[in-house]
Amino acid sequence: MEAAVEYLRKQRRRHLDELIELCRIPSISTKPDHADDVRRAVEWTRDRCRSSGLTAEIHETGGHPLVYAEWCGAGADAPTYLVYGHVDVQPEGDVGLWDAGPFEPTRNGDWLICRGSADDKGQVLLYVRAAEAWLQTEGKLPINLKLLIEAEEEIGSPNLEPYIREHAAQLKCDGVLISDTGLARDGQPAITRGTRGIVYKEIFLSGPKHDLHSGQFGGAVQNPANALAAMIAALHDADNRVTIPGFYDDVVDPTEEDRAQIKALGIDDDQFAADLGVPALWEGERGYTAQERRSIRPTLDVNGLTSGFQGQGANTIIPARASAKLSMRLVPDQSAAKISKAFDAHIRALCPPGVRMELTTHGAEADAYVTPADHPALRAAIRGLREAFDQEPAQLREGGSLPILPMFKEALGADCVLLGFASPNCNAHGPNEKVNLPDLDRGAEAIARMFAHLAAS
Amino acid sequence: MEAAVEYLRKQRRRHLDELIELCRIPSISTKPDHADDVRRAVEWTRDRCRSSGLTAEIHETGGHPLVYAEWCGAGADAPTYLVYGHVDVQPEGDVGLWDAGPFEPTRNGDWLICRGSADDKGQVLLYVRAAEAWLQTEGKLPINLKLLIEAEEEIGSPNLEPYIREHAAQLKCDGVLISDTGLARDGQPAITRGTRGIVYKEIFLSGPKHDLHSGQFGGAVQNPANALAAMIAALHDADNRVTIPGFYDDVVDPTEEDRAQIKALGIDDDQFAADLGVPALWEGERGYTAQERRSIRPTLDVNGLTSGFQGQGANTIIPARASAKLSMRLVPDQSAAKISKAFDAHIRALCPPGVRMELTTHGAEADAYVTPADHPALRAAIRGLREAFDQEPAQLREGGSLPILPMFKEALGADCVLLGFASPNCNAHGPNEKVNLPDLDRGAEAIARMFAHLAAS
Repeated sequence: MEAAVEYLRKQRRRHLDELIELCRIPSISTKPDHADDVRRAVEWTRDRCRSSGLTAEIHETGGHPLVYAEWCGAGADAPTYLVYGHVDVQPEGDVGLWDAGPFEPTRNGDWLICRGSADDKGQVLLYVRAAEAWLQTEGKLPINLKLLIEAEEEIGSPNLEPYIREHAAQLKCDGVLISDTGLARDGQPAITRGTRGIVYKEIFLSGPKHDLHSGQFGGAVQNPANALAAMIAALHDADNRVTIPGFYDDVVDPTEEDRAQIKALGIDDDQFAADLGVPALWEGERGYTAQERRSIRPTLDVNGLTSGFQGQGANTIIPARASAKLSMRLVPDQSAAKISKAFDAHIRALCPPGVRMELTTHGAEADAYVTPADHPALRAAIRGLREAFDQEPAQLREGGSLPILPMFKEALGADCVLLGFASPNCNAHGPNEKVNLPDLDRGAEAIARMFAHLAAS
Repeated sequence: MEAAVEYLRKQRRRHLDELIELCRIPSISTKPDHADDVRRAVEWTRDRCRSSGLTAEIHETGGHPLVYAEWCGAGADAPTYLVYGHVDVQPEGDVGLWDAGPFEPTRNGDWLICRGSADDKGQVLLYVRAAEAWLQTEGKLPINLKLLIEAEEEIGSPNLEPYIREHAAQLKCDGVLISDTGLARDGQPAITRGTRGIVYKEIFLSGPKHDLHSGQFGGAVQNPANALAAMIAALHDADNRVTIPGFYDDVVDPTEEDRAQIKALGIDDDQFAADLGVPALWEGERGYTAQERRSIRPTLDVNGLTSGFQGQGANTIIPARASAKLSMRLVPDQSAAKISKAFDAHIRALCPPGVRMELTTHGAEADAYVTPADHPALRAAIRGLREAFDQEPAQLREGGSLPILPMFKEALGADCVLLGFASPNCNAHGPNEKVNLPDLDRGAEAIARMFAHLAAS
């Protein structure tokens, strides 16, 4: 193992040049006119996997192609792990906000600035670097390694689940390794232990067939905007708990360890509030801290409101329509499908007789996911990170949602371990996306070490 | 009087040609590039007043000029009445929605189609026609008559109140006559006995300094859109009464006569709901019918809601901002100034600590107004209408607001009587605005007869 680590140190400069090469490809999956660039990035990745000593091939999907690579010479007794990552990127956004071209990788001290540098090209290549280090020094890997690198992550991975289900035998593994998340803070590595589930709804209320004069009709006609406000308000009770019947039935209450891990992050609530620019944090669900509420407790938030006159000044109307987008974040063991149905029934019951309601569900509904505390890959990852960073990795419960995690579990029976190396300030999806190069180097080392620990687990 | 009525019959065709002439002038007060047209309409009106036998002159204001005309030869013992009306018009809107040019008056059977035909050119000219009929047949009017015809009504009459206060002596009168409202239904004349007051507010809530990821921050941060919904919902109680402290303190409960007049309109609630396209009328304030609630009871309606993501599909954000426009309609003797302050205090008390609030008041706050039941001009108007239309005029309590009514009362000590001749389907402010010519002819006769009844009152 030390030889592999030494190899990584020596190849650092070349590995950086390769990352820069990949970053130059504007593989924007959301823009159809970049389809050729996306394919170029996939082909580059296949070639890079091959040059590291892996076998690799491109698989076509209904959309952008993906790369499947592997080295399975460790034998049937050795564990098998699947790496998932992506080489497509978000659009560049407003080019004027970038200091240099979004696809012109630029060095600034220890940072490399470019779209995709952190999300996810820089991180997914860490596995290729680590595999190469083992293969070039030891001639083998301590585990069987499979890599599934797609190019549709930024458009919601429409072809990923069908591919995985179709290739379940090929992808069979003892766990999934993913690096598409962040460090706990600059310098401190992190394992994201869990994500919340999501259900996203849109409520459309309609009243009169067109906007009415609020003087001539106010009092006689149910105002869809007032009705919407009342319905939304009724979704929380006085303790700021969600009122949907059964919402908390399947919620696994946090363990003392869960709470201790959150507390150990040492987030100062006053500073947290000041950084966000809010006058105070939300009082929120009674009995939980703000940091708990945003990670291990379920929530319901309005994402958008639209009704009536939105221009400058006054217009005295009863709006014909009012709509709200709202999403719920779920925790183990809430079922997204069950909550989705319960929401629909509850909101229908709240809808008053003077308006008509239509309901839409947006996006895929996803359950929450938590990596089991006793999973061998979790222990191996913690050990690798500790050794490479000389620090105990934080264990994070992420408030956001990663539908692929429960999907891997469901389709392959495999749990996921998330090792993140992006800086909290990496500005993924924004202008001047960047990655810290020493963090990437330590990441490659952590992964190379983890491979050995996985074999021993 | 019969000679004057006979004169109106004979001059009907010429009077129509004159209306067409005035309607051709695109006197759109809201568009600065139509300022010359507005002035032309004012000059035309001055000339028309003069040709009818009135003295007339143009008075400059800070904005568009106005016409002041009078005939005050009836003597100090005869009553003096002031007519108020306007010759400016709304913009044409989408020209494609008009069957002919918006300023090309077109006949369609008994209807004249043109912007301004109903609102208010056709109606204000009725007083000029009636005055001419008396002056050309009897050589005098039975009352002293003053006309104040402005050209800024459609932009909120910014210069009217200063003008009236400055010319209070010139405008001294026993009552104000206004025809800028509608018939009860086609063929049935109406007197609008009262209007509601108005207070219009906008609430701006701001939370985090920019939109936040609803997964990463949901639960910790007060969501401005959820907070706004809760604040709006809290403005009504379970009986659908407005919760602002003191809101009902000064409300004059409707008399049995008020309620009987509304009932006498014979509005079928089911048909009313069907016409508006609503599945049911609002339950509304407990203890009152829908028709009462929209005319003689105070209300609070949201006019617009804006927050977060309003596009197609999903965006998982906690919006940085949320805002609502809302207006209250007031009844006698609520004070708009008092309610405005009470609202501000109440909404501040409802605002939770996790968001900041700014409050704006839009437009002029106005009190409600009701013409006293025993006003001599009311009796004279009813009699004139009854004789000209062969029907008992309806007495309406309009749910909308006319800030000039309490203003006339306050500035001149004069009550207003509103005789309306526009069809309920006239489409004022919309495409194909139209007026029914026989209604106008009967209106001119009603006014000519009213002049005599005013003298006798």
